[in-house]
Amino acid sequence: MSYSFEPIGLVHSCFAEKFAIPRQPQLAPAARGVLELFPPYDKPEAVAGLEGVSHLWLLFVFHAAASGEQHLRVRPPRLGGNQRIGVFASRSTHRPNPIGQSVVRLDGIEDGRLLLSGIDLLDGTPILDIKPYVPYADALSDASNTLAEAAPAQLVVDWSEPALQQARAQALRLQQPVIELIEQCLAQDPKPAYQRPDTNREYGVRFWDINVRWHYPQADRIRVVAVEQ
Amino acid sequence: MSYSFEPIGLVHSCFAEKFAIPRQPQLAPAARGVLELFPPYDKPEAVAGLEGVSHLWLLFVFHAAASGEQHLRVRPPRLGGNQRIGVFASRSTHRPNPIGQSVVRLDGIEDGRLLLSGIDLLDGTPILDIKPYVPYADALSDASNTLAEAAPAQLVVDWSEPALQQARAQALRLQQPVIELIEQCLAQDPKPAYQRPDTNREYGVRFWDINVRWHYPQADRIRVVAVEQ
Repeated sequence: MSYSFEPIGLVHSCFAEKFAIPRQPQLAPAARGVLELFPPYDKPEAVAGLEGVSHLWLLFVFHAAASGEQHLRVRPPRLGGNQRIGVFASRSTHRPNPIGQSVVRLDGIEDGRLLLSGIDLLDGTPILDIKPYVPYADALSDASNTLAEAAPAQLVVDWSEPALQQARAQALRLQQPVIELIEQCLAQDPKPAYQRPDTNREYGVRFWDINVRWHYPQADRIRVVAVEQ
Repeated sequence: MSYSFEPIGLVHSCFAEKFAIPRQPQLAPAARGVLELFPPYDKPEAVAGLEGVSHLWLLFVFHAAASGEQHLRVRPPRLGGNQRIGVFASRSTHRPNPIGQSVVRLDGIEDGRLLLSGIDLLDGTPILDIKPYVPYADALSDASNTLAEAAPAQLVVDWSEPALQQARAQALRLQQPVIELIEQCLAQDPKPAYQRPDTNREYGVRFWDINVRWHYPQADRIRVVAVEQ
């Protein structure tokens, strides 16, 4: 028996590609997006009461996950990419049913739109459901997880002077916290954990409509070298 | 565009009917169940690593929710059943996409089976996904929800002497914490919040294969009067 679901909306997000999306939401508070609700869910009735709610769970489709062959085990990046664990012990996007679950901050409610931050969703992500975060039920004080005991260590991110000026200009143009977004996402170290970076090699990613380029002057340090539309 | 998902397993649960299921998981730690994984997910590889994880998120289908007409607003029982809020501000089972999300305790891992407690799932619930609870990402310390600020107030539950003896016998037969299960679930007050109970009226529910009957000697007190197979 299979179950069929129609998206109730989609997310317009700062993340134009999968690379450099934080591994968990909340790691980049400056990552913003807008959830556009489809009719009839764009009516104010459907979200009445959310004014009193600080955070939402979004259930969504990993629409850009490779479909291909199913594996029962995955290599989570945070375990260095060489240790395999069961897919149900991981939050991998490559799952038997590619449904994601993210907690995001609700910053505002407009006509048929929810303004979000702290997101880890790719632009265009189809949303299946929205549920209010219920602190007394969802924030467990006695839970433990030895595979992910704390947020990943962060790299130091610094800037070339031209890149910082470019970022300031893009922030003004987009009216978005571009500098914070870049610092928070790159501090998570987007490259695969098993890659030892050549100090000259440049990496790049697109946030909104801007291309960000950086390199690793040391293994634990990132320097942003260009931020261009 | 619609998305189709096949269950990866189903839950065998103490809750034989919807009535008296706690409104959030964790409210009844004695509520136990077994998640039976379907092939190929019943292989040990699929859950390797879960030994280090105390709690799981289950994504599931509200398979017994009435399909009928869609409403954008619902009357949550905890608001007394007479205040309507948007469906996306509630955890109601009557949702545009009837997908549920529950956090449960993982008590053990057997061949193709996960032993669970603190569940709020109806017997036979189809499971779409299992994800590990990640405390640093899921347990938000700064979240607020004015619609559900604390766990609901609990009623006092006491027993007629014959009912308590019956419950002890059923607990032995089923090898389940039947007394705790009944006390924890009835303390949530299963009846609709807007009903003022006649002190003589008897209510009943089935847990596992046993029928539990109680009445309300006072509005805030439950007396269990029978526990019979």
